[in-house]
Amino acid sequence: MIAPVRRRGRPPAAESTAGDTRQRIVRAAIDLFAEKGFHGTGVAEIGERADIQRGALYYHIGSKEELLWQILRDYIQPMLVEAEQITDGDDDPITKLRNLIHSHVRLIIRHQREVTIQLRDVGALTGGRAADLQGLRDRIQRCWQRVIDAGHAGGLLRTDDHVVTNSVLGMLNMVTFWYRPHGGHSPGEIADILATTLLDGVVTCTDRNTKG
Amino acid sequence: MIAPVRRRGRPPAAESTAGDTRQRIVRAAIDLFAEKGFHGTGVAEIGERADIQRGALYYHIGSKEELLWQILRDYIQPMLVEAEQITDGDDDPITKLRNLIHSHVRLIIRHQREVTIQLRDVGALTGGRAADLQGLRDRIQRCWQRVIDAGHAGGLLRTDDHVVTNSVLGMLNMVTFWYRPHGGHSPGEIADILATTLLDGVVTCTDRNTKG
Repeated sequence: MIAPVRRRGRPPAAESTAGDTRQRIVRAAIDLFAEKGFHGTGVAEIGERADIQRGALYYHIGSKEELLWQILRDYIQPMLVEAEQITDGDDDPITKLRNLIHSHVRLIIRHQREVTIQLRDVGALTGGRAADLQGLRDRIQRCWQRVIDAGHAGGLLRTDDHVVTNSVLGMLNMVTFWYRPHGGHSPGEIADILATTLLDGVVTCTDRNTKG
Repeated sequence: MIAPVRRRGRPPAAESTAGDTRQRIVRAAIDLFAEKGFHGTGVAEIGERADIQRGALYYHIGSKEELLWQILRDYIQPMLVEAEQITDGDDDPITKLRNLIHSHVRLIIRHQREVTIQLRDVGALTGGRAADLQGLRDRIQRCWQRVIDAGHAGGLLRTDDHVVTNSVLGMLNMVTFWYRPHGGHSPGEIADILATTLLDGVVTCTDRNTKG
């Protein structure tokens, strides 16, 4: 279908709502923070990249730190919603663990640049914003721990050690550093490989049985 | 043994060698980069913390980027040396994998602040320094891949997928973000938990046998 002519170019000013403008600023900031770091990016650059005046920029986003907070919150909140849905569901703990891994890997890859920004620049958040973001991350971690605890209590998992929970989340978050969109594996394949590695280990059954 | 009196206070100026001064600068820079980030740290602050004049600082370290490069090189080079010793040794691939995990976790924890700096600020290196650091990291990754390849070729490991190699290194590097010196586990215990998780998985044998 051919789009109506009036949609082909840039929309007329009247159609450019505050929401559109905010989106344009957020996209520009994600590009720049991912590329040059939060501290390496000036507010003026964000304005230039988003094609918006400095005054209007402050009107729409308040401050550079507020922008960072919104960028991180906007990817971590949906991650928490999915994690809570999986954790509160009726599946057995091992299915839940597989589903948590798939959800996390998919969202990490979809928000690859935001995760890069978080791993590098989360320390730039202060006060209430830092506490709120840490609160969201803690709630995600508690979902994982609840599933692992349930699996351990039910005799399905060997361990409920927090070292494992921390390390699995660390491993999945680090996917952002090496994932390439045109690499050999889709996000779902990567999640499958990591779920099998975590659940069953890398040692072959033959070798395990010989030793056991 | 009681130290000679002349050693008790600050050493006389004549004994303060260029090596001591350089060490003092490096320690100050590690503190500041870890705390405030490479971009958030000024050269003047490093000088103040190390108690050294700005001119002397440039004489000893050249530039802030050179200092970053030396800090990262000084922990990654010994990591490579250990990885190569383990990889080139005579142990079987599974023992080598356990030893690589122990070596890596121990060095990551010993150099926790340097790893934090690397994960956040490695992008600040440019040109030859960036290439040299990437070269060291690639050589470490190749050691791991050689061991995993050998284990797979010998039928001991289920996979030689690079996704696993990348993810295991990511998991171990992320220890730096959650490890606390007075937490419940020693570095060796953490390495044991992670080695067992990676090699054997978290699913109990009972559950595996039921499914298998």
